[in-house]
Amino acid sequence: MAKKKLGKQTVVFDNPPSIISTASIVGPKEGQGPLKDYFDMVLDDDLWGQGTWEKCESKMQQEAVKMAIRNGDLKESDIEYLFAGDLLNQIISSSYAARQLQMPYFGLYGACSTMTLSLSLGSITIDGGYGDKVVCVTSSHFSTAERQYRFPLELGNQRPPTSQWTVTGAGAAVLSANGNGPYITHVTTGKIVDPGVKDVNNMGAAMAPAAADTIVQHFKDTGFTIEDYDLIITGDLAAIGKEIAQDLMIEQGYDVSSIYTDCGIKIFDNEKQDTHAGGSGCGCSATVFCGYLYKELQKGTFNRILLVSTGALHSPTSALQGESIPGIAHAVSISNKIS
Amino acid sequence: MAKKKLGKQTVVFDNPPSIISTASIVGPKEGQGPLKDYFDMVLDDDLWGQGTWEKCESKMQQEAVKMAIRNGDLKESDIEYLFAGDLLNQIISSSYAARQLQMPYFGLYGACSTMTLSLSLGSITIDGGYGDKVVCVTSSHFSTAERQYRFPLELGNQRPPTSQWTVTGAGAAVLSANGNGPYITHVTTGKIVDPGVKDVNNMGAAMAPAAADTIVQHFKDTGFTIEDYDLIITGDLAAIGKEIAQDLMIEQGYDVSSIYTDCGIKIFDNEKQDTHAGGSGCGCSATVFCGYLYKELQKGTFNRILLVSTGALHSPTSALQGESIPGIAHAVSISNKIS
Repeated sequence: MAKKKLGKQTVVFDNPPSIISTASIVGPKEGQGPLKDYFDMVLDDDLWGQGTWEKCESKMQQEAVKMAIRNGDLKESDIEYLFAGDLLNQIISSSYAARQLQMPYFGLYGACSTMTLSLSLGSITIDGGYGDKVVCVTSSHFSTAERQYRFPLELGNQRPPTSQWTVTGAGAAVLSANGNGPYITHVTTGKIVDPGVKDVNNMGAAMAPAAADTIVQHFKDTGFTIEDYDLIITGDLAAIGKEIAQDLMIEQGYDVSSIYTDCGIKIFDNEKQDTHAGGSGCGCSATVFCGYLYKELQKGTFNRILLVSTGALHSPTSALQGESIPGIAHAVSISNKIS
Repeated sequence: MAKKKLGKQTVVFDNPPSIISTASIVGPKEGQGPLKDYFDMVLDDDLWGQGTWEKCESKMQQEAVKMAIRNGDLKESDIEYLFAGDLLNQIISSSYAARQLQMPYFGLYGACSTMTLSLSLGSITIDGGYGDKVVCVTSSHFSTAERQYRFPLELGNQRPPTSQWTVTGAGAAVLSANGNGPYITHVTTGKIVDPGVKDVNNMGAAMAPAAADTIVQHFKDTGFTIEDYDLIITGDLAAIGKEIAQDLMIEQGYDVSSIYTDCGIKIFDNEKQDTHAGGSGCGCSATVFCGYLYKELQKGTFNRILLVSTGALHSPTSALQGESIPGIAHAVSISNKIS
């Protein structure tokens, strides 16, 4: 077995990268939610002076990267690689941000799992000695995602209770070979689990089995127990998906309910903000991690967390062609101490 | 500087992964081209028994992975990671293939640069000790790409001379920590170069500056000279882009013309096959590498090559919003011997 491999789907780092800084930028609605004080910047509107929502999303990514670099007292030229992706066709938010940032660029697509997809590959790059400093970034935007995946916003379609609200926001994290944590110590890479859900307004249910699969595999591979973690947090299963994932884990003997929540539940007050099941989008786990979780790790509220961004890997075309929604989840274990 | 870093954008491997096997599957038109005898499978039609072209493309990817694994005398369960991407919105060809293959899956998007994007990250994973065996795969399909990026095929639009013909095909390569080569020894990761081209029927010109930039950077980072290579081959610049890239390299003091060609030129006979400037698509460099180049490396016709897949990172939406086309190129250095 490869020397840094642990079990079937997990790798463990000898030189765990430190997350030396982060930045988060969110839209107005996210800036009125329960986590509002944790974000570095809240936009006044969802265009940010750009002519289109897509250009606003790309600007959010670009500015989040620059801000994370400044927050780490670094220069842009210190960054060796950019790991980025987003929800839009051909990940244009990322590529147009990368055009401005002029860093060697690995483009990724993991739908809403992209934050931990980028942290996984960024960590491998640092731990392996291929770079000293990299940035991992992703974003989503309610208006770009809604019109691409569902309906023109002008239609004002009614949304079912299972539907989620795509987060407008970008989160960026700088990983470094040198730092004092929080450290990424383990990565568990997901495989696709497809429970056969075809309802694009019920993404939580489509992704929940993948999340449960990756989390259970993480415990099996590492030998960690639930007591080793202060928090397990999935990306954007929201209220309905979270319950399903929890039940699926209990069925397999892993009752994580005492320490388990979901970024899509944390970011909005569903009752007051009319966000139905909760938040979704690449920007959901990105901003919740880069805002709330990172700062609470630094304060010591949490000392070890498992961040599990979750992705629904369908497209409008595959949905029209009768395909179900494949789910995936990638987990990164983040700790204030190296054990 | 990180211990495996060489210059600004290149990494060098201590434990270079071997490409122990490949497989290539192409459509009927590619199967009538100059490289027809190199492909493992030529389809009789462009649907392969599937109800849609998209499902055919996904099947090509899936079957290319299975065939590459068989060609390497391995089982599917031996593979630790799948690195895959394609041109379709939300890379559905890859994700639906990954659903069937049930391997831990890193989804990538680099447009037509995806073959070397996947080989780059796959090599880092093997060399760093995170896995012993991985598969890198990508695909494209004329009919899925045309209707997504340009016009419905039924319109029968006339194509300008600069336009390229998207290759229908998939190529998969198995990388292993143990093997006798050909080895991936260096990876040079591209940054975005955008020359301001807005014509989506002139992708070669949009990508050529990025290709020249990555190749020149590769020489600067590694200290290699043109004599160190038997062949430098870009992904899908085709006839017009290749000339531009060559001129741009000459301007910078690197006259590679004696050993330089392009996969988009090799795969079709433009005169006889009416393919205008030549081939394009992720499947272009994937099938030319996994078919022709890999077999000629094994025969010793080439002993060291630089494969430089090239990507145009726009979308139909970004084009409609007046954006130019960002280009990128990732280079992998492949050698029969470890120096």
